[in-house]
Amino acid sequence: MKSRLLAMGGLAEERLRLALQALVDRNQAVLADVIAGDSRVDQLQMEIDDRCFTLLALYQPVAIDLRTIVSALKINADLERVGDLAVNIGEAAQRYLGHPPVKPLIDLPRMGHLALKMLREALDAFVSRDVGLAQAVLTQDDWVDAFKNQIFRELLTYMLGDRRTIEPSVDLILISRHLERVGDHATNIAEDVIFIVDARDVRHHAGPIPTNPTASATFVERRETPRVPPV
Amino acid sequence: MKSRLLAMGGLAEERLRLALQALVDRNQAVLADVIAGDSRVDQLQMEIDDRCFTLLALYQPVAIDLRTIVSALKINADLERVGDLAVNIGEAAQRYLGHPPVKPLIDLPRMGHLALKMLREALDAFVSRDVGLAQAVLTQDDWVDAFKNQIFRELLTYMLGDRRTIEPSVDLILISRHLERVGDHATNIAEDVIFIVDARDVRHHAGPIPTNPTASATFVERRETPRVPPV
Repeated sequence: MKSRLLAMGGLAEERLRLALQALVDRNQAVLADVIAGDSRVDQLQMEIDDRCFTLLALYQPVAIDLRTIVSALKINADLERVGDLAVNIGEAAQRYLGHPPVKPLIDLPRMGHLALKMLREALDAFVSRDVGLAQAVLTQDDWVDAFKNQIFRELLTYMLGDRRTIEPSVDLILISRHLERVGDHATNIAEDVIFIVDARDVRHHAGPIPTNPTASATFVERRETPRVPPV
Repeated sequence: MKSRLLAMGGLAEERLRLALQALVDRNQAVLADVIAGDSRVDQLQMEIDDRCFTLLALYQPVAIDLRTIVSALKINADLERVGDLAVNIGEAAQRYLGHPPVKPLIDLPRMGHLALKMLREALDAFVSRDVGLAQAVLTQDDWVDAFKNQIFRELLTYMLGDRRTIEPSVDLILISRHLERVGDHATNIAEDVIFIVDARDVRHHAGPIPTNPTASATFVERRETPRVPPV
């Protein structure tokens, strides 16, 4: 079950990465693939749900095994949504490519990388039951928010300055909102990992989340890392 | 557990309704309440998860009882997200009210009513294990989509015509996307009801969903029903 969940995570991640790269490369063919190919993720979701259900019915697990299976059900739903979001991003990107570029895309791919990194780390934390890594994912959610706001402010300036950029800019804003949701799903998964290992529900700040005093410094640093090439 | 889930559904629904009404009434105080008051929904979510978990651990349920508890976990997550969406709508509405009105709000409240209706019917279907009602919810998702597209097209016209409407229009577009997500969550719940009763997974069109040949006629009719008063 764990390996299938990872396969699903890898697939959802890959489709998201493809959608973002195709947006940057202005590659309509890849976008069409991403939009058309959600069925494998959907199929895996149903298989995993089914497996979880069978495990619950046949083995009547308790303690950490029960927490793992219940969390697998939730993670499964999160990953399926990430697959959907890849499709949503692909659709918005398709519309975006119907217009001349608004601007070189820099922050949006960075935001995408961050969301993908959070997702991968959350899944790694799930596999290795690494609470520290899961907590590191939780601290990154604020950076996603910062990207979202920055992207919005910048696009607003473009829209106010040139009405031809309005329609494509709205699609870029929507893409940034979809990426924000990917970050939220990564956060959900990280919270599930903490629940599995510590039997502790840290959602809604019910449990203590260690703050990262260097978060903003790290944020600045992260922005110096190698970039996705702009359009 | 069922009664708590209903309490949570009622609460999420109520907060959504308040947010939409406050948008129409331009009532900042109510919006501030909606945004501040998500903690009760969050608390209920954790209680319900905990209850489901205990039921699984202690009673090792099978068949329809197992399906009900597993679905309750999922419905719980859906309702919590609806609560979050009420907050998201409240925040966008707050920003919107910082500007002069773009236009009388007619389709957006209608879309909100439709999403709320779907949510209520999905929860009713859950309580009464009514597969017919659950299937009726599934057919309404296309109408939500039609509203979303219509609202987008209309707002685009305003934005292109007057740059002062750009920023508030983006918030109305975001609200319509949040409402679309509410409809998606209602759809998820309806699919869970079909799974509980029929042990049949109808997600991703895995099972047959009866088509409604009069859907578009009904849609037109629905638009004649009493309206939320425009701004």
